[in-house]
Amino acid sequence: MDGSVPDYESAALLMAITIRGMDRAETVALTDAMLHSGRILGWNGIGRPTVDKHSTGGVGDKISIALAPWVAACGAAVPMIVGRGLGHTGGTSDKLEAIPGLRTNLTAEEFAAQTRRIGVVIAGQSADLAPADGTLYALRDVTATVESRPLIVASILSKKLAAGASGIVFDVKCGRGAIMETREAASELGRELVDVARELGRNARSLVSAMDQPLGLTIGNANETAEALEILRGEGPADVAALTRVLASAMLVLCGVARERHEADARLDTTLASGAAMQRAEAMIQAQGGDPRVTVDPSILPRAGVETKVPAYRQGFVAAIDARVLGMLLVAMGGGRERKDQKIDHAVGIRLLRKVGDPVKVGETVAIIEARRDAPEWAETAKRAYRIADLAPAPEPLVIEALGR
Amino acid sequence: MDGSVPDYESAALLMAITIRGMDRAETVALTDAMLHSGRILGWNGIGRPTVDKHSTGGVGDKISIALAPWVAACGAAVPMIVGRGLGHTGGTSDKLEAIPGLRTNLTAEEFAAQTRRIGVVIAGQSADLAPADGTLYALRDVTATVESRPLIVASILSKKLAAGASGIVFDVKCGRGAIMETREAASELGRELVDVARELGRNARSLVSAMDQPLGLTIGNANETAEALEILRGEGPADVAALTRVLASAMLVLCGVARERHEADARLDTTLASGAAMQRAEAMIQAQGGDPRVTVDPSILPRAGVETKVPAYRQGFVAAIDARVLGMLLVAMGGGRERKDQKIDHAVGIRLLRKVGDPVKVGETVAIIEARRDAPEWAETAKRAYRIADLAPAPEPLVIEALGR
Repeated sequence: MDGSVPDYESAALLMAITIRGMDRAETVALTDAMLHSGRILGWNGIGRPTVDKHSTGGVGDKISIALAPWVAACGAAVPMIVGRGLGHTGGTSDKLEAIPGLRTNLTAEEFAAQTRRIGVVIAGQSADLAPADGTLYALRDVTATVESRPLIVASILSKKLAAGASGIVFDVKCGRGAIMETREAASELGRELVDVARELGRNARSLVSAMDQPLGLTIGNANETAEALEILRGEGPADVAALTRVLASAMLVLCGVARERHEADARLDTTLASGAAMQRAEAMIQAQGGDPRVTVDPSILPRAGVETKVPAYRQGFVAAIDARVLGMLLVAMGGGRERKDQKIDHAVGIRLLRKVGDPVKVGETVAIIEARRDAPEWAETAKRAYRIADLAPAPEPLVIEALGR
Repeated sequence: MDGSVPDYESAALLMAITIRGMDRAETVALTDAMLHSGRILGWNGIGRPTVDKHSTGGVGDKISIALAPWVAACGAAVPMIVGRGLGHTGGTSDKLEAIPGLRTNLTAEEFAAQTRRIGVVIAGQSADLAPADGTLYALRDVTATVESRPLIVASILSKKLAAGASGIVFDVKCGRGAIMETREAASELGRELVDVARELGRNARSLVSAMDQPLGLTIGNANETAEALEILRGEGPADVAALTRVLASAMLVLCGVARERHEADARLDTTLASGAAMQRAEAMIQAQGGDPRVTVDPSILPRAGVETKVPAYRQGFVAAIDARVLGMLLVAMGGGRERKDQKIDHAVGIRLLRKVGDPVKVGETVAIIEARRDAPEWAETAKRAYRIADLAPAPEPLVIEALGR
């Protein structure tokens, strides 16, 4: 960060790491150095345990928006730093910013003050937390060194540890729509995140969850925020509800608010039923400048008005929905970005009416493109993202594996 | 060379090549691209075959200084580009420049005109021949990617091929004082140099020669030039004479001046005995601005006046002389350089009185430090570079292997 290492030396190092890998001690050392390249937040005297969640990124992953206030309503503090969308995966910052007025670019002071006051904040990474990660990531992006497990571990952890939570639950996505396509690769990443976090003095747990088809029934920004808020009303798609709940439960146990999973689940039920979870979301939205009416009236969110139907190309059962293709389709529609400096359109999106396992008739609408204009070519892309077979596939578990406890 | 590839991308590529290696087609492609990054000299109408020699670098290697004019005297043209000393290995440019007035920084026009007029030139690399090599080498130097065989091959060949000779003999050094320490590594480098040169339309041959102890009885600049010129008087150390002769012979056969080795050897004998070889050296030195009297009176070369004797630490036989240690000692004495921009002192040097296999008595002088001042610490270093054993080692061949014919 003092400029004494030229980019070409860093680039050579990154390539050597990508090809050769790093052992545990090297990964810990790099993570620690990146963590200490900037400010590290501390939560002394906050009076409740701090806990965070990180997802390695998927399509339709809106979990954090409901999860963070829900866990806060149960008695933990959740100082959460989230990313922007890039490529086929969306970013929680973009989704939240679909709420009129809401800011995620908080200063470190705003971030700390909000956490202490209402126990929850979801903000974009500020420049003074793990700045070395930003520098190295920019180089990785242009030197074909993004897909290196130890570099991914150091990047994720340096940012998360800088935010200061004493426990972190990792949602490691696995499948076609994720960084880690195979179960083995996802498990290794999950294990290493837990081990390195622990070596650096934090408690951690990883859940490996499926990311073959998109999560939930929406892909976009405004529509995903609306869907996440449904969870806090006890509604919403079953997969989003289940994953939010299991991650929240793991967080509560990890940070000691609950002794074990049943106790955590009971607490989650109570705060959901009482409306405390939604009230906490409302407080968070309001604190960050957003219009709190969104919690009762999702119609204040922007919506692109032109719908194009996506028909099933044959009769049968939905066998697969290619999350990566739909993620890139959202980028093409303007709802995501390929370069960091691109602006996005929060109002466009894709609505899924049928998911894996559902029976369909030929010509029946399986999804709807919500765009600024009629878009038959996008509907065609979405149609081909669906694979329809004669038989229903065997159901696959959403949470595949839990690591680190 | 148009600046469109940033250093960090090149550095990442160089590291990937260093770790993963390159196959033959990739090495040929990189060499060809580097070759075409600048001007490529052509020798149409010169009326005699062109041939060149390249050494991968060793300690005490002054071969080119006698070799080039000798081969030219036999009827070939030798347009030779040589390097400067760096680290423990010396450079022919530096050695030749010990001759008062002599320049090796010729323009491409001077280089071409001298080759056409007298058939021989020894010059430093001009900026317009394979400039990409200079750019990449500077990056390799600071990214720990110097010691990659395909990058070494591409670097050597791009420069040598740009000088335009139709045949090249490689002297691949092998041992403690060389880039390639093992016989296998040297063989592989020699083979690859020949193969890639041939794929790019040039004739080539590699000799692998020993570089455990220094070559000859001198290490330095002025003293090595003097020793090289002794060869052209039919004098000088046996190893320098033998290696100069075998390389010269290989060049004459490679370029077709002689049909086979015996014919080449006879031609070399004739030009040596007649004085034609030394006359060609004199013409070359004069053409490059040097004082031609050096061929008859070596005392016009600069000599550091203060001698410090290096005694044998025990009785026995010289079992080894660490070429690398003595090469670095010359750097410490000011006769070599660690950074490209350092000036060197041509007058300092090390004179070896005993070589491997020689019997020594305890306290007997085995070498002499020739410096600007009394230097017991350098003598101590030199003393430790000698290993003395009870028994004489089995004699090792100077030329270990010939590849490419």
